[in-house]
Amino acid sequence: MHREKVMNKDSIVIIGAITAGGSAAFKIKRANPGAVVKVFESGEHVSYASCGLPYYISGVIHDYNSMVARTRRHFQEAGIELYTMHDVKSIDLNKGEITANDLETGKKSMHGFDKLLLATGASSIIPPLEGVELAGVVALRTLQHGLSLKEMVCKQDIRKVVIIGGGYVGLELAETFVTLGKEVRLLDKLPQVMGTMDPDMASLLEEELIKNGVKLHKGESLVAFEGDTKGKLRKVISDQGQYEADLAVLALGVRPNSQLAGDAGIKLGVNRAVAVDRYLQTSEPRVFAAGDCAEAYHRLLKRNVYMPLGTTANKQGRLAGDNICEAMSLFPGVLGSAVVKVFNVSAGRTGLTEKEAEENNLPYASVIINSRDHAVYYPGSQPLCIKLVYSPADGLLLGGQIVGSEKSVKRIDTLATALTAGLTIDVLREVDLAYAPPFSRVWDPVTVAANAASSRLKREHMK
Amino acid sequence: MHREKVMNKDSIVIIGAITAGGSAAFKIKRANPGAVVKVFESGEHVSYASCGLPYYISGVIHDYNSMVARTRRHFQEAGIELYTMHDVKSIDLNKGEITANDLETGKKSMHGFDKLLLATGASSIIPPLEGVELAGVVALRTLQHGLSLKEMVCKQDIRKVVIIGGGYVGLELAETFVTLGKEVRLLDKLPQVMGTMDPDMASLLEEELIKNGVKLHKGESLVAFEGDTKGKLRKVISDQGQYEADLAVLALGVRPNSQLAGDAGIKLGVNRAVAVDRYLQTSEPRVFAAGDCAEAYHRLLKRNVYMPLGTTANKQGRLAGDNICEAMSLFPGVLGSAVVKVFNVSAGRTGLTEKEAEENNLPYASVIINSRDHAVYYPGSQPLCIKLVYSPADGLLLGGQIVGSEKSVKRIDTLATALTAGLTIDVLREVDLAYAPPFSRVWDPVTVAANAASSRLKREHMK
Repeated sequence: MHREKVMNKDSIVIIGAITAGGSAAFKIKRANPGAVVKVFESGEHVSYASCGLPYYISGVIHDYNSMVARTRRHFQEAGIELYTMHDVKSIDLNKGEITANDLETGKKSMHGFDKLLLATGASSIIPPLEGVELAGVVALRTLQHGLSLKEMVCKQDIRKVVIIGGGYVGLELAETFVTLGKEVRLLDKLPQVMGTMDPDMASLLEEELIKNGVKLHKGESLVAFEGDTKGKLRKVISDQGQYEADLAVLALGVRPNSQLAGDAGIKLGVNRAVAVDRYLQTSEPRVFAAGDCAEAYHRLLKRNVYMPLGTTANKQGRLAGDNICEAMSLFPGVLGSAVVKVFNVSAGRTGLTEKEAEENNLPYASVIINSRDHAVYYPGSQPLCIKLVYSPADGLLLGGQIVGSEKSVKRIDTLATALTAGLTIDVLREVDLAYAPPFSRVWDPVTVAANAASSRLKREHMK
Repeated sequence: MHREKVMNKDSIVIIGAITAGGSAAFKIKRANPGAVVKVFESGEHVSYASCGLPYYISGVIHDYNSMVARTRRHFQEAGIELYTMHDVKSIDLNKGEITANDLETGKKSMHGFDKLLLATGASSIIPPLEGVELAGVVALRTLQHGLSLKEMVCKQDIRKVVIIGGGYVGLELAETFVTLGKEVRLLDKLPQVMGTMDPDMASLLEEELIKNGVKLHKGESLVAFEGDTKGKLRKVISDQGQYEADLAVLALGVRPNSQLAGDAGIKLGVNRAVAVDRYLQTSEPRVFAAGDCAEAYHRLLKRNVYMPLGTTANKQGRLAGDNICEAMSLFPGVLGSAVVKVFNVSAGRTGLTEKEAEENNLPYASVIINSRDHAVYYPGSQPLCIKLVYSPADGLLLGGQIVGSEKSVKRIDTLATALTAGLTIDVLREVDLAYAPPFSRVWDPVTVAANAASSRLKREHMK
């Protein structure tokens, strides 16, 4: 690994200013106040929390400025040179220089770098289908998307919304549009929503969607969009039906913005994300990558995956900032930990699902338990369902999934901690978890799940 | 260690039927349906959750029967012989026999045992002060206490309540009586409430008490109670003042009911609790002890402590049931994990406080961070304060304390899991904790706390 301390006058160029790029820039400036840090962002907005967008559109969040973590002024005050509306067109690795295009003036400029960070993010997957360019067919990725969509739902008479894709964003948007009083249809080509969870757990979310009036179409593929003569969306056409729609939202996931890196000869990896080592260094020692454009090391699989999440982008950004300066540290890895609220039910997941264990040829077993989020005799208790996936040979925990009340699903962190520590279910069941009637049952559901897994493991071994 | 499988016809006697006793009885009957299991309980009620009592008294829980985990009929159906209102007067270890007194008929009876489980629980500490016997001076330990107190607050004109002791029960009762519209005063002889937390964290609970109208008297010792001519409480007298009171509740903690065991020659240990080994076996191999009457092994201190909590009683009861049969397993140990709700603020703790580290001569350092329970831009976020106590030599986590919203403090389980796994703060900060705006900030407060501890540790080592 190439390593060199950034000298005070070094030039650092960062491409992207949303999450990883912003984190890195501030980290570098704090560590090396004398360094020249230039950040290029093709959009207008910087350093915002796109995770808040579904709630901004629904009106739960009133002011989009509250989602901005660091304003242009924060960059300025920190002494970071921020170039918004600047599209970086190319990277010349030999010269150590990038070429940027000012989108407002059309002017080109060149900027030399000693170290370069790629934080170019990801873009919504837009399938190349007929009618995808129609007015009323949108994706939700950037703050600009959010502002446009918000304006659209406020100004236009939108009654029928079709969401395509039942992942985190798709499910959050289902809640958004039901909240706004729309008729909501959700299509997923998989036979389940939330492909990052196993079908048995995802089915609990499906029930909640249906209960709240969402028309759910599983195992149904998008074919085309049909517009009216004015080029406005009229219908969403799938392989199984045609649905009138005033608005169609594509929530099919994202792909890494890695073209720029690829064109420069930087190696791309899993899912064409920028390939990085554990130090977030790319194939080019002077170039680092972080966030949604880059691979992420998976703690359990012990290899890189593509798993773009806001938490990871923040952590990788900060770490890349560190490593660009001097404190070379390993990226510890992800577990794919995530939580999502879907109306009155929430879900959490960490580590491997059964499906993922299978795909990775890891032997697995699992248990599901049904409990309550707190003492049944204390008012307001709600169902809580926990699934544990574990290794049948040694009882090592492989993953966990939780569906329950909003207050209960952060228990997934207990499982993420157990995964990080490499605990077996027999140790997990020993953890002294906290109890009082408003918070848990005296046997915490996590303990109940671990006990169930442990008993099953013993029975299997006795066979 | 003496070990012997319970044969199908063995007689098991269990003294106590509230928590540990009930858990054990059912466990034994499931494992050995042919065993004769006799359970003796001096009170009328069995197998109830005393943790719910403050909420029953406040009216949050309407029906006390909902707090009963297993009724008399459940015992019957399981084939367990249940003797309520039976006081066990003595244990004859040579004969393998107990003598019980039927409190209703006054009849004595003798019962032989092959194995005996002491699950005699604990009693409220009643200080031998003048006036402690007055009507209106009560403690809250048993369901019977709860029913009496509930009746009292419903029927009598009680306006002024003084709670003595600011531990879990004292604080819950402060909320109870404020909810009921009483004028509430809380006395604690310590300079802080919640002696199981450090003063800096406990102070956040004190603020919440005061904010809700509780008159807080810290560092003030109870001296006597003064009654009227009818023997009814009139005043609570401390070393610093006299307070009019219609009701005084003693919440000074508990002491183990261990006299019976001690009289029989069974060894008592810490705080005069029944001494047990890791298998919950007492000094007498045929006799086990579990729950609030017994010691509990502390996972970090690696020695027995007295730390009576409902979770532990349940777990020890079940384990004792197992070990009385055949599956000799070690009690894994406690961390003193607990959560408590105090009006709109909740608190959690696990492992060692600074004070406990000091008492145990363990070098320690700590950090406190202030964050929010979820994304600031998502409505309803509340402050969340986390303290981590760790070993300055190697960064090993020693304990954690959390004060925040009701939905946020079960994060203490993440710390309990980290303690169980023996994680350092540098590994804790690496855990991929789950995020979405309604559940957390993108940097989860636990990660923020671990980062702060890690940075401090590095700074200290560079000095």
